Amino acid sequence: MRRTIYGPDHEAFRESVREFVTRTVEPRAEEFIERRLIDREVWREAGRQGLLGLEVPEEYGGGAAGDYRFNAVLTEELAGQSMALASSLGIHFDVCAPYLVELTTEEQRKRWLPRFCAGELITAIGMTEPGGGSDLAALRTTATRDRGDWIVTGSKTFITNGYQADLVIVAARTSPEKRAKGITLFAVESGMPGFERGRKLDKVGQPEADTAELFFEDVRVPAENVIGEVDRGFVAMMERLPQERLGSAVTNVAHAAAVLSETLAYARERKAFGQAIGSFQHNKFTLADLVTKIDVTRAFVDQCVAAHAGGELSAVDAAKAKMWTADVQNDVIDACVQLYGGYGYMREYRVARAWADARVTRIWAGSNEIMREIVGRDLGL
Amino acid sequence: MRRTIYGPDHEAFRESVREFVTRTVEPRAEEFIERRLIDREVWREAGRQGLLGLEVPEEYGGGAAGDYRFNAVLTEELAGQSMALASSLGIHFDVCAPYLVELTTEEQRKRWLPRFCAGELITAIGMTEPGGGSDLAALRTTATRDRGDWIVTGSKTFITNGYQADLVIVAARTSPEKRAKGITLFAVESGMPGFERGRKLDKVGQPEADTAELFFEDVRVPAENVIGEVDRGFVAMMERLPQERLGSAVTNVAHAAAVLSETLAYARERKAFGQAIGSFQHNKFTLADLVTKIDVTRAFVDQCVAAHAGGELSAVDAAKAKMWTADVQNDVIDACVQLYGGYGYMREYRVARAWADARVTRIWAGSNEIMREIVGRDLGL
Amino acid sequence: MRRTIYGPDHEAFRESVREFVTRTVEPRAEEFIERRLIDREVWREAGRQGLLGLEVPEEYGGGAAGDYRFNAVLTEELAGQSMALASSLGIHFDVCAPYLVELTTEEQRKRWLPRFCAGELITAIGMTEPGGGSDLAALRTTATRDRGDWIVTGSKTFITNGYQADLVIVAARTSPEKRAKGITLFAVESGMPGFERGRKLDKVGQPEADTAELFFEDVRVPAENVIGEVDRGFVAMMERLPQERLGSAVTNVAHAAAVLSETLAYARERKAFGQAIGSFQHNKFTLADLVTKIDVTRAFVDQCVAAHAGGELSAVDAAKAKMWTADVQNDVIDACVQLYGGYGYMREYRVARAWADARVTRIWAGSNEIMREIVGRDLGL
Amino acid sequence: MRRTIYGPDHEAFRESVREFVTRTVEPRAEEFIERRLIDREVWREAGRQGLLGLEVPEEYGGGAAGDYRFNAVLTEELAGQSMALASSLGIHFDVCAPYLVELTTEEQRKRWLPRFCAGELITAIGMTEPGGGSDLAALRTTATRDRGDWIVTGSKTFITNGYQADLVIVAARTSPEKRAKGITLFAVESGMPGFERGRKLDKVGQPEADTAELFFEDVRVPAENVIGEVDRGFVAMMERLPQERLGSAVTNVAHAAAVLSETLAYARERKAFGQAIGSFQHNKFTLADLVTKIDVTRAFVDQCVAAHAGGELSAVDAAKAKMWTADVQNDVIDACVQLYGGYGYMREYRVARAWADARVTRIWAGSNEIMREIVGRDLGL
Repeated sequence: MRRTIYGPDHEAFRESVREFVTRTVEPRAEEFIERRLIDREVWREAGRQGLLGLEVPEEYGGGAAGDYRFNAVLTEELAGQSMALASSLGIHFDVCAPYLVELTTEEQRKRWLPRFCAGELITAIGMTEPGGGSDLAALRTTATRDRGDWIVTGSKTFITNGYQADLVIVAARTSPEKRAKGITLFAVESGMPGFERGRKLDKVGQPEADTAELFFEDVRVPAENVIGEVDRGFVAMMERLPQERLGSAVTNVAHAAAVLSETLAYARERKAFGQAIGSFQHNKFTLADLVTKIDVTRAFVDQCVAAHAGGELSAVDAAKAKMWTADVQNDVIDACVQLYGGYGYMREYRVARAWADARVTRIWAGSNEIMREIVGRDLGL
Repeated sequence: MRRTIYGPDHEAFRESVREFVTRTVEPRAEEFIERRLIDREVWREAGRQGLLGLEVPEEYGGGAAGDYRFNAVLTEELAGQSMALASSLGIHFDVCAPYLVELTTEEQRKRWLPRFCAGELITAIGMTEPGGGSDLAALRTTATRDRGDWIVTGSKTFITNGYQADLVIVAARTSPEKRAKGITLFAVESGMPGFERGRKLDKVGQPEADTAELFFEDVRVPAENVIGEVDRGFVAMMERLPQERLGSAVTNVAHAAAVLSETLAYARERKAFGQAIGSFQHNKFTLADLVTKIDVTRAFVDQCVAAHAGGELSAVDAAKAKMWTADVQNDVIDACVQLYGGYGYMREYRVARAWADARVTRIWAGSNEIMREIVGRDLGL
Repeated sequence: MRRTIYGPDHEAFRESVREFVTRTVEPRAEEFIERRLIDREVWREAGRQGLLGLEVPEEYGGGAAGDYRFNAVLTEELAGQSMALASSLGIHFDVCAPYLVELTTEEQRKRWLPRFCAGELITAIGMTEPGGGSDLAALRTTATRDRGDWIVTGSKTFITNGYQADLVIVAARTSPEKRAKGITLFAVESGMPGFERGRKLDKVGQPEADTAELFFEDVRVPAENVIGEVDRGFVAMMERLPQERLGSAVTNVAHAAAVLSETLAYARERKAFGQAIGSFQHNKFTLADLVTKIDVTRAFVDQCVAAHAGGELSAVDAAKAKMWTADVQNDVIDACVQLYGGYGYMREYRVARAWADARVTRIWAGSNEIMREIVGRDLGL
Repeated sequence: MRRTIYGPDHEAFRESVREFVTRTVEPRAEEFIERRLIDREVWREAGRQGLLGLEVPEEYGGGAAGDYRFNAVLTEELAGQSMALASSLGIHFDVCAPYLVELTTEEQRKRWLPRFCAGELITAIGMTEPGGGSDLAALRTTATRDRGDWIVTGSKTFITNGYQADLVIVAARTSPEKRAKGITLFAVESGMPGFERGRKLDKVGQPEADTAELFFEDVRVPAENVIGEVDRGFVAMMERLPQERLGSAVTNVAHAAAVLSETLAYARERKAFGQAIGSFQHNKFTLADLVTKIDVTRAFVDQCVAAHAGGELSAVDAAKAKMWTADVQNDVIDACVQLYGGYGYMREYRVARAWADARVTRIWAGSNEIMREIVGRDLGL
């Protein structure tokens, strides 16, 4: 069905993103998988094309699109190439940007945002801790005052862009006795003594998204690197999680739709027992179901995107979008693998990689169980 | 999430429908179930309120709303009361109306539509035949010319409103050798000699929707009762099935949403093992999933309604909406039954009746398998 | 696959049960549905054939089979006819029998068992209470001593055979302060003043299984009608629930298998679009899945039956069998309905009634949620 | 529930296999994954322990167990370590053995079997071809006579053990005009000119199972290497596929059960939000369902193993076992991943590797769709 939330500007922007992906990323896709990271040159080229600063005011080098639908278009086209591309760049332009734009001082914005927009300052956000999982209120990383500075101690794990990031927004406990109300955000930067990274984590999928464990051993962070107010980090995160979850939802649908589209083409052409495999009724019905599932899901996510662009997306609807799309994505791609038969299990086929790439989406950005908790609570249960 | 397709006019209309339902139908709901039909007085009152002629030009007594969203609102509110109410009246104002308005002669419109709008001429449509199922092209009811008239012979089954209908639009084969291209539509009216009705069918659910088998034994139908062109009935039906399927989809979502809403209230209040049953994590997560499923589904159906109001809903998207919502409805209400425990199995609880009422929606209006075939074919498979 | 747990004796017994069903029940099936009970003559004939006293010693008129597999065979064949037949008689010969045989005094056995075996004393068991659901420890029916007697006050609901039962085993609280440890079982008999029955409950399915609410208004029950020890009723029930659940599991599989078998025959013969509907690949695969599901499930239930016959079935395995089979039964019959198309929604087709009959099995005998709790607890969670 | 098909001999054998795995494989598991093959020393040690010749007569160095349950025990214990171990060795001792024992000449048995049993002659079987998938009757590899020899030309793909195999049983077309009836099996041996192997295939999972494409460019195969009769290869394969499928089923259940067992331990110990994650009701119920699913499935597979040991397993039941268990395995391990949260996506956790390892089981050994076709055909559809 014709999508109704995008206008000509969005579609023109979509074209330019697509061109960026085709020219800059696609030819080097294998290489990035091999090296297990996306080369900085991609970031810089994205910066040159103005893709990274959609939420950043023009005075700091951004595009100040002021319309979340551009974020969504960018996310869709990156996800159309690969989950890892969408998640890696998305953490930067879609997740970290609001923190660095909305919570920062003028001095901080001047210091960080121009390089942020140029793809020279890669960012990450460190919430999850080893052993901590989804329980943000139970953070064990601490920051204690030492003269004007803060001493950060602890560790974070599963950090997308963790290996390459020049600046990591780190949530740390500053008031130990207050659970959620004692958390502050810090910009920990590359090169600060005591800030170490573990090896890149060996994930089931998304090899080109560098994901790392981060260690903070008495890292001295100057007061100028506090993001937002002290002890207000939890609220800051809660307010921004819906956008992260919506971005995740957009990624989920776009990635699944791209894989399904390739699978459809395959099912039309590939022959077995003398006919196109897609023409066997079982496969035909399966594909009809998958296409329907994507269409239905997209309608909801589009509605969420429009709502968010209008400033009225609730945290609960974002949670619904995140969990629903993660399930849909996994179901759809799993069925696509089956349609490819043995080839669906070979990494040289995109569907195989996509299948492994997608699995984490039911776990990250707040696991689907956490999302159910959020939705359930909102129902007064 | 806030729905975006309805404006103040639609909501005002919704209020008036709701008032109609509360006043006219609700107090007699038990009676209609007992009698296994909806009393004609309800039809007439609906007529008086202008609910039946939304698609009918004003000159024939209709409201000429010219906006499918009013049909959708009406359908939603009827379905909020019961499936049978929505399907029984829906066959009339949403399914039969387009045939009688668009394909008829001026004389026919004058003859039928005023009483149609007034709820005095109840209509039904006869496509399905015993043994024929979803295969419209294989119709066995025939109509042969006899002087200026037609002699209709055959039978139809599963006809909603079949028992009470004053006028049935009957598809019959007029050119035996041409499969789909030899079908014509006839208005067979109550009292025509040879037109008999079987007993009301004993269905699993929707007892108050009278459903019957119809028999045509050499029924002499005058040429003035041919609807549309001779031999063009198949196309006429194909063009109008999307609206029927969309109406079915709207019903499915609205009915499931109403039952879910009641179940939520029940789960908040009903206690077991010392706590509200909805607060058990398993139930809470289940309800979170159901609410999400309804929200996602409604986004799609709303998009379809808006598309249809704009004249651009494809047959394929209507098929998707029909099958998806039927599955969703059944899943949702089945889970609701489980939440009610033993009471979910007692007919005095609405959820129990709703469960049985809903089952047919995966079968009727083109079975979900036929929908998959339509969607699959459209994919080039 | 060949089943391995039954020998020639069991198969011979199966034949005799089948003959009983064919001769005594089948011809009157419609009548029992209409009357919403199974005529006492069926009970008496079952008694004459020795079907009701499989667990009863010969001296009291029973068969003393001493081998649970005969119970299982009987249950299978009754369920092959209808859920209601299996559940109605099953409550008597499979659920109530162990209480009346194992916990009773010699005097009680002589008083009740001959008529129990003859089908003249129909029994029921009253655990569930309005508002109480699955929480046995929260019983509100009380029994207080009054001289040598007990005064029973309270109510029970969803009682199978409740309307016809001559003797109801009623769980009542005798020591209010002790939760589970203050419950006693009483034989409340027809005709005792203050023992009233509500109307037969209007269930979604199983109309011929009379199910009723029971009211006890200061019913004076003599001490000779206490079953087992005072305050030991909870343990008595806990020890016997596994057999009830296993019986329920056997019923579930046998009923689903019977419906599937009829559906297979239908799918082979019924034509649509010029071919047998079962030969469409989607239907063929569906049926292949259903048959597989039944075979797999039956292997497990057979293993449970053999274990129970050997005295080593655990409560946990019985819970697994109950919940798994209830889900399987519902899935299988729901898919069968779909294969019948519109006819699957008409009560004159067995598949339609079976679908409605089966729904309760996920709720009764300990809801599937309670079963999951039992299994989960056993996992140390 | 207690399993009933194994006796003390089987359990003693199980212990010895377990010891073999613990001592020989476990310490080197990482290494094999890294090297993407299982070292030949493992094969030789398995040979020394008598694990490889269970089906081989003693005169050729085998154990002549004469009881398929030993195969099943061996398979279970290997699968308990990893899918790849079970599939790699299983292809040899469970799949290839029957061909080399039953279809061979005395001279061939003497030539191959002693080294086969000793783990010095690793075997593989080549059925599947690029582009051919599951359609055995459409083989394109040919063998044409040239004097006393055969010239084999073509290629095979997805061949487990393909990279290391010393002897590959290759199905080739010898009578081009006869579809299924023109296929012959050949033993193509390492070192034969024209027999080349492609690179090890880069699979989603099971990295340590070497899987390769094989190329035959005019490979001269002496007549002494024909296995069985010329043109009778199809029947030979058909007769042996049930055992392969049963072995696959045994692997599926044992692997899933091992992962589930580890997950249960994890869920009991791992804390989140202050409690063991397994104690959250949603997780508890999920685990209850998974354990039930495994128990039910194992009952069926055990029944199949017993039937096969007794010589009466049908091809249809083997197909049911294969497809059902593959689905179950995937469902179970997928749910286990979710319980591990982020760690479930890290390859260092066994559950993560197991998830990727398991995916292929719905595809290989005859895809689940082919299995449904087999089962459906047997139903007369």
